[in-house]
Amino acid sequence: MGLNSFQTSGNSPGSSRCRVGLVGAGALGLAIARRLTAADSPSSLHLTHISDRRARDKQPRVAETLAALTWTERFDDLLTSDVDVIVEAVSASEPASDYVRAALLAGKSVVATSKLVMAHHGPALLGLAERQGRQLRFGAAIGGALPIVRLLADGLAGEGARVIDATLSGAANAVMSRMDEVGCDIDEAVADACARGYADADPTLDLNGADAAAKLAVMCAFAFGLRVAPAQVETRSAERIRPENFRKARLRQGTIRHVAHAEYDRERGALAAWVAPLFVPQASLFGVTTGPRIAVRIVGSHAGEVTAAGIGAGVEASAVGVISDLVAIGRDRAAIVPAPVLVDPRQVSGISDLQLAEAV
Amino acid sequence: MGLNSFQTSGNSPGSSRCRVGLVGAGALGLAIARRLTAADSPSSLHLTHISDRRARDKQPRVAETLAALTWTERFDDLLTSDVDVIVEAVSASEPASDYVRAALLAGKSVVATSKLVMAHHGPALLGLAERQGRQLRFGAAIGGALPIVRLLADGLAGEGARVIDATLSGAANAVMSRMDEVGCDIDEAVADACARGYADADPTLDLNGADAAAKLAVMCAFAFGLRVAPAQVETRSAERIRPENFRKARLRQGTIRHVAHAEYDRERGALAAWVAPLFVPQASLFGVTTGPRIAVRIVGSHAGEVTAAGIGAGVEASAVGVISDLVAIGRDRAAIVPAPVLVDPRQVSGISDLQLAEAV
Repeated sequence: MGLNSFQTSGNSPGSSRCRVGLVGAGALGLAIARRLTAADSPSSLHLTHISDRRARDKQPRVAETLAALTWTERFDDLLTSDVDVIVEAVSASEPASDYVRAALLAGKSVVATSKLVMAHHGPALLGLAERQGRQLRFGAAIGGALPIVRLLADGLAGEGARVIDATLSGAANAVMSRMDEVGCDIDEAVADACARGYADADPTLDLNGADAAAKLAVMCAFAFGLRVAPAQVETRSAERIRPENFRKARLRQGTIRHVAHAEYDRERGALAAWVAPLFVPQASLFGVTTGPRIAVRIVGSHAGEVTAAGIGAGVEASAVGVISDLVAIGRDRAAIVPAPVLVDPRQVSGISDLQLAEAV
Repeated sequence: MGLNSFQTSGNSPGSSRCRVGLVGAGALGLAIARRLTAADSPSSLHLTHISDRRARDKQPRVAETLAALTWTERFDDLLTSDVDVIVEAVSASEPASDYVRAALLAGKSVVATSKLVMAHHGPALLGLAERQGRQLRFGAAIGGALPIVRLLADGLAGEGARVIDATLSGAANAVMSRMDEVGCDIDEAVADACARGYADADPTLDLNGADAAAKLAVMCAFAFGLRVAPAQVETRSAERIRPENFRKARLRQGTIRHVAHAEYDRERGALAAWVAPLFVPQASLFGVTTGPRIAVRIVGSHAGEVTAAGIGAGVEASAVGVISDLVAIGRDRAAIVPAPVLVDPRQVSGISDLQLAEAV
């Protein structure tokens, strides 16, 4: 077993290996599958099943260790199998939330990788998981390799968070820091990010702010206890940024980043939430966070400022988040992961005039 | 209930409030008690008992809300009480590890704040907690308000960490950044840190590296799966640093920080671990981390670089860590927190000649 893995004693519920099924054998799914079958895979985890609509085509084309697993084209086969937990890693065209719901109803725990599923159905699905006595974890969906959910939901539990500032799309960050670094236009930077595996062929959701807005909505639930729909987050696109904008920012010792901001005034019940391409000083947390890395700054009522940064794009980074969630489930399959108790903000506003002055 | 708190459904084991007892009513203990009796305290937690050797003197001198709790001079009264969890916040002169052990044996979960207890007895006490079916959590002991343990043990679970770099003493960081900022000598900076509540009257352990070495030893267990005694960590004191050292560092666009470093070569089983006052660039993570803040940089085999920073000194920061651990226990009292499975490093070395060239 790996030297850094953890095991529970022989008498505890976690003593047998946790059986894992995977739905979706695209780039992300296969990265997760490779991690789970590698020599340094946590010994508590055992990948047994892979479901993919095109399993028949894909199975013969993967490495032997993966091909030897049970492959199926029918997601339902995972539900009736003996797996303990299902990893959702399907493409955007598939009904990921239906898969997650069905898995929980079948008594499986779930590790979800779709931020849109969590942004739109997270609270309901977390409630279902809790009622089923199962776990729904989704760290990779929000932070990739950066454990943002752990930070907010666990590390700062009980803390009255007041402000979140974050660059949440590793793809957008890779594009913007590339434009700054080499002075190229956005199409060239997008092509570079795609070639490096940081952006999808169609990076629209990353650049127009929808990706960051979805993640910010989920963070508002855990940081503030607020029910926020992604559509309530004002988003300003970064798609029209030009090399000239970066040149101007440099003259002011700064650069441009796609910053997500949320601030909650508990007394007034007022939330401000937006995503916008913003001037940031070069030496700031966001300025020094380059490439596919993302960064988050949380200001708490008691904790003061807590910051963190790590890789937020690419399948390898997402696999880190998935593996850590699987290890948590393997350690304690009966763990209670309570759904956040949410209220609606009384008032939601977008970017202020003051902040708009620094927007690009 | 607080808007950002979480509750479990009526049927779950977490539905009744978690009863908390506190041992140690010094500055830290009282800060924790105030948080637990404040209006924004997590509703899942209920502080009922306070034990302190001088309870008779102290009880009349605290605020009414606190004085109204059950006070006792006998720690054993907590063991026979109906509290679910005991918070250890005693001074260095008391047998903190005996308290933790006795609490676990009495069937209580424990939140410990002593880094020395965790560094010297952590693995054994975590094993005892697991056998008892109880939890031993200790986030505040390592990171104050920065959830370092969550980051390592949960967020990067399953990750083969390779390198840790960190400034782990908020008190030492406050002293060193003060010397840099105002050009004063170390005694003046220590007095300032004491006045602000970042350092104890005797800051020896913070400045000679013993505090950081103890924390680094605990981090080696969770990051590398290694059994490391604090004495195995080479420590170089920061007590003899002079204003002149900072002036010289400035000429090189840098400053000085008390950096803890651990690097594990899994193949060779070789650990390098040391704490030393080191030249760091002004714009680096450690350079920009000033005052009582601490910072950590972890390099993983798969996650790449993950960084985090937050307040690491002062009783309010420690209370943040304690509250988050209490919330976790309140959410799921039957949670399994497995003790790390540890091996001895085959070889332990200190600071290398190359790194020594940047030491002060």
